[in-house]
Amino acid sequence: MKATAFAPGSIGNVGPGFDVLGLAVEGIGDRVTVELTDGEARVDAITGRDGELVPRDPAKNVASIAAAAWLRNAGVNKRVIVSIDKGLALAGGMGGSAASAVAGAFAASLACSAGVPPALGRKAGETPALHVSIMAAALEAESQVSGRHLDNIAPSVVGGLAIVRCGDPIDVVPVRVPERWAVVLITPRVRIETKAARAILPTEWPTESWIQQMANTSAMVYAFATGDGDLLRRSLDDRYAEPLRSRLIPRFREVKRAALDAGAIGCSISGSGPTIFAITIEVDHHCASAMKKAMHEIESDLHVAPIAKQGVRRV
Amino acid sequence: MKATAFAPGSIGNVGPGFDVLGLAVEGIGDRVTVELTDGEARVDAITGRDGELVPRDPAKNVASIAAAAWLRNAGVNKRVIVSIDKGLALAGGMGGSAASAVAGAFAASLACSAGVPPALGRKAGETPALHVSIMAAALEAESQVSGRHLDNIAPSVVGGLAIVRCGDPIDVVPVRVPERWAVVLITPRVRIETKAARAILPTEWPTESWIQQMANTSAMVYAFATGDGDLLRRSLDDRYAEPLRSRLIPRFREVKRAALDAGAIGCSISGSGPTIFAITIEVDHHCASAMKKAMHEIESDLHVAPIAKQGVRRV
Repeated sequence: MKATAFAPGSIGNVGPGFDVLGLAVEGIGDRVTVELTDGEARVDAITGRDGELVPRDPAKNVASIAAAAWLRNAGVNKRVIVSIDKGLALAGGMGGSAASAVAGAFAASLACSAGVPPALGRKAGETPALHVSIMAAALEAESQVSGRHLDNIAPSVVGGLAIVRCGDPIDVVPVRVPERWAVVLITPRVRIETKAARAILPTEWPTESWIQQMANTSAMVYAFATGDGDLLRRSLDDRYAEPLRSRLIPRFREVKRAALDAGAIGCSISGSGPTIFAITIEVDHHCASAMKKAMHEIESDLHVAPIAKQGVRRV
Repeated sequence: MKATAFAPGSIGNVGPGFDVLGLAVEGIGDRVTVELTDGEARVDAITGRDGELVPRDPAKNVASIAAAAWLRNAGVNKRVIVSIDKGLALAGGMGGSAASAVAGAFAASLACSAGVPPALGRKAGETPALHVSIMAAALEAESQVSGRHLDNIAPSVVGGLAIVRCGDPIDVVPVRVPERWAVVLITPRVRIETKAARAILPTEWPTESWIQQMANTSAMVYAFATGDGDLLRRSLDDRYAEPLRSRLIPRFREVKRAALDAGAIGCSISGSGPTIFAITIEVDHHCASAMKKAMHEIESDLHVAPIAKQGVRRV
């Protein structure tokens, strides 16, 4: 009646794939313990990054909402007591709330049983029913925080690169990723709210521009699928969000140039920022140092890791 | 000083990949013979489909314009005498003008030498220099007929499924296609001009819709790359052009339903129509018959063939 799950952080959008692509990152994520109870729901303990900012009201806490939603959808009449150990900042652009929600829903599923009622898979497309049920519960929680978007939830659940082909019904396509490709994440210590970063985006954008964005996103998926670093370098080119959102991020241009000069095969903004990500052909501390140096006097946190091959897991 | 080339016809857009994807089709295409001359340029003979509609003025004939453009770009000071044997209708939506232009440019390159001056590759991205030079010349010719679009030219040159990642500089990504996948093409005998079919499209379209289109296009590329027919079935879903252009095509809805009911893994409009294409997991005459039958009293032409693994070739 009690279980713990870990969900990795993730890079939303991954450049041009706005609201479509997400990439899971190894070694950093949120850990959630769920205990079933017949009593009142509550949030027991919150440790880790930004712990003091995480809501303690179970009706406002994403891990708790997602866990409760999973149980309700599965027809399990229980409340949850959750404990959260956050590895991800709340508004860093590394899918922190998605990871909490995913870990919460998955821990709830583990706490009540190993299986998943068949009914949960009914709108599943080809995505496995358990994955769909976790994503649906996490989406319900996320929609109360940052809107109904799956681009962080999907990679947190399935690992690797995920295409959100459709949000309703949920249809997520896990894309094969090259064995050694890795990422560098650098987060300047400034806060950008997801909602503000969305508001800055154009509501209308020319057809030719969308066609170019579509071409880059498709080519990027193919670059991952085939391990073609040169193609990734050409196609990881976001014309929609990056030009506007990068203005909110100190030293973005310098950090991007430093990453590419150091051999990264792509660099852009993770989700709504302020985290900047670079993709490298292997774990690359030299590239990370170059990016850190380019941040100059701006304080920042660095994470260098492989792409997470696995998504949410029992711990 | 004389050579003949064959370029296959192609399906432009391939559903959601508007102006981004093209798919080459085996067994149908245009054949162009180019002879170099120091005298006047001329169009010698035009045979085959719609031959009577093909311009005989070398300044207005796409094969001739493309051949001349290729030579000029290569610094070869010669005029061309072209003969054309058309397998593709002029305005059928199967890339007829693109195939003529590609075959013309390639035949010109064969007629003057086997090689290509290195300068032609200078803006080539990773696409081979000869391919880029053919595409650039064909694009110059096509832009005088139907606008500057590479989605038919690219597959006619490289074969298989092509992503037009960028038009300027030209960057085309050939995508691995499943060995046995095939197509059915059915062309009702009505004429739709490419320009009219473009004019019907919305100049503004909502961001959420573009995101959905981007998701489907990316997922479709991955479906081809991995041979995932179920994924193709879900992702070959064009919300941009199909709903509007299908109104210009008699019996579209019935033919599409018949194709999918007969086991096709996707069906939409080829380029600007009126050709309707279906993708099948192997050459499928049963599916073709079902589509033909659904055309009812409308006269139509049918072509059932594998995906062309090879693009333009010497014959």
